[in-house]
Amino acid sequence: MIQPILLTGDRTTGPLHLGHYAGSLRSRLDLLDSHETYLLLADAQALTDNAHDPEKVRRNVIEVALDYLAVGIDPTKSTICLQSHLPALAELSMLYLNFVSVARLERNPTIKTEIAARGFGRDIPAGFLCYPAAQAADITAFKATVVPVGEDQAPLIEQTNEIARRINAVAGRDVLPEARAIIPRSGRLPGVDGRAKMSKSGGNAIPLSATPDQISAAVRAMFTDPAHLRVEDPGRVEGNVVFTYLDAFDPDTQTLEELKARYRHGGLGDGKIKKRLDEILQALVAPIRNRRAEFAQEPDFVLDVIRVGTERARVVTEATKKEVVDGLGLFAL
Amino acid sequence: MIQPILLTGDRTTGPLHLGHYAGSLRSRLDLLDSHETYLLLADAQALTDNAHDPEKVRRNVIEVALDYLAVGIDPTKSTICLQSHLPALAELSMLYLNFVSVARLERNPTIKTEIAARGFGRDIPAGFLCYPAAQAADITAFKATVVPVGEDQAPLIEQTNEIARRINAVAGRDVLPEARAIIPRSGRLPGVDGRAKMSKSGGNAIPLSATPDQISAAVRAMFTDPAHLRVEDPGRVEGNVVFTYLDAFDPDTQTLEELKARYRHGGLGDGKIKKRLDEILQALVAPIRNRRAEFAQEPDFVLDVIRVGTERARVVTEATKKEVVDGLGLFAL
Repeated sequence: MIQPILLTGDRTTGPLHLGHYAGSLRSRLDLLDSHETYLLLADAQALTDNAHDPEKVRRNVIEVALDYLAVGIDPTKSTICLQSHLPALAELSMLYLNFVSVARLERNPTIKTEIAARGFGRDIPAGFLCYPAAQAADITAFKATVVPVGEDQAPLIEQTNEIARRINAVAGRDVLPEARAIIPRSGRLPGVDGRAKMSKSGGNAIPLSATPDQISAAVRAMFTDPAHLRVEDPGRVEGNVVFTYLDAFDPDTQTLEELKARYRHGGLGDGKIKKRLDEILQALVAPIRNRRAEFAQEPDFVLDVIRVGTERARVVTEATKKEVVDGLGLFAL
Repeated sequence: MIQPILLTGDRTTGPLHLGHYAGSLRSRLDLLDSHETYLLLADAQALTDNAHDPEKVRRNVIEVALDYLAVGIDPTKSTICLQSHLPALAELSMLYLNFVSVARLERNPTIKTEIAARGFGRDIPAGFLCYPAAQAADITAFKATVVPVGEDQAPLIEQTNEIARRINAVAGRDVLPEARAIIPRSGRLPGVDGRAKMSKSGGNAIPLSATPDQISAAVRAMFTDPAHLRVEDPGRVEGNVVFTYLDAFDPDTQTLEELKARYRHGGLGDGKIKKRLDEILQALVAPIRNRRAEFAQEPDFVLDVIRVGTERARVVTEATKKEVVDGLGLFAL
């Protein structure tokens, strides 16, 4: 049976953390059996705002691959591949840049937000402004029709489909399929400090390789309800990071709803809910951490997974590039 | 003896004309023996403002190659190669886009002028805005240090060197050499109608394949001095297209200076100078046209020239890409 093609991936700027797990890794595991899955180690995209520090981008290729294997992504059921080693992606990117205007890129809501977040001002690297075209190349090169992305990334899929439609219009036939975004149920997991974004650089993330002590320390430091001073006081559940994490990870939703009711009413201390979360996270992370440590002992195996995946991806992406080039009627040697 | 490396090329948007001959082809012939010369059939760059008409870009690959062979560019002394078939150029382009800001691209005087000339307004294709980075990839991929360009293109070489310096700074060593522009002695040849730019689409160009009748018709139609009504009137030499062409092509500069003096003084008719120019252009174009017709009979040979050159260029450009990737310390599989 032909399975729908799914593309996903991560910028290789740091090891993955619980935010990635809740937001995307977990749903990828669910989709692995029903989709032909490509996972892109996006080192080329990571460079669009890290050109000053290519060493960081290089180092984290293996870290992200280890995270994939550690959470249970089966390399025999998926293709883990390295973006910078797929020349067809660069070739398609350069081609697609001719099918999108500068004004359109500047209007892209995702890009606007990300430019503001990075404080680039007028000094946006051109590669960063252009990355939606590169992402269109990634998605279409694999002919992916299913792309799991955060809600804030959905405009990038629309941009991809616009480019695909333009290519198809010039080619006079459907060379490239359109893709649809899958938005994960759970929204973005906040940092342990309550800030909207969990990030390694922000120091508010729990990495997938966190030790038991690191997990406990992170849970202890977690932002709850600052007005909930005594156990008997009523507490707020909304914006309470501990409950947000419990919502994301507690498998026993019925007990969780009862705890929320008690917390709102008063009589449930932060210590109790933190203890519950600590136990849940310890149970979740322990096998990931252990598998990660095992795979880290076998660098040749990890490298082989990337090599084999990249070779497989090369065949697919080169074939698509050829179809696009033929479709546009460019010169063939 | 190691020769300096020279890169040049032409967008494949139409057959070449006398403007190309005077402005660049002629000096390339002079440099062929003293330089390791690469000629790029720039179909990828041609797409940056012709994405709506890839068929035109495709068709003119062979036309430009025929023009090269027709003017006497010896494929055994140079490498004629096809830009779109050199993936390292796209890969380096994408990499370089991270080392140049959008603001810097928008400030580039060449780009500003060309955007205005094309009437793009806000709808500049992103590929067009980014083409200085792609041109930097072309130049550096061959490690060219000598780049013959029109005066208006000189800022592009400065942009190339800026990118090379940034790459070298991050790499901590000189991976890429800097290039210098060679500006041809004769400036840009005007159209036969006196407009500044000779172009096929403007209908004011004499193609290198022009028939004797086409040449004569073009010379007859040439703009001279509108105030020079009678033979005995004094005439203007400056801005007189016939004299501009004689300056570019008349090998007998002494006689030409005498004719200019007589024309200025009065007593020399437009018919006489047009007859002289017609004879010179017929003598110049005839062997080019004939060789072009002969090569056009041998499409397999022309294709082979491009194939062999592209293969040779692939080796060179892949090696440079690897040096840049290694220099930046990116992940190697």
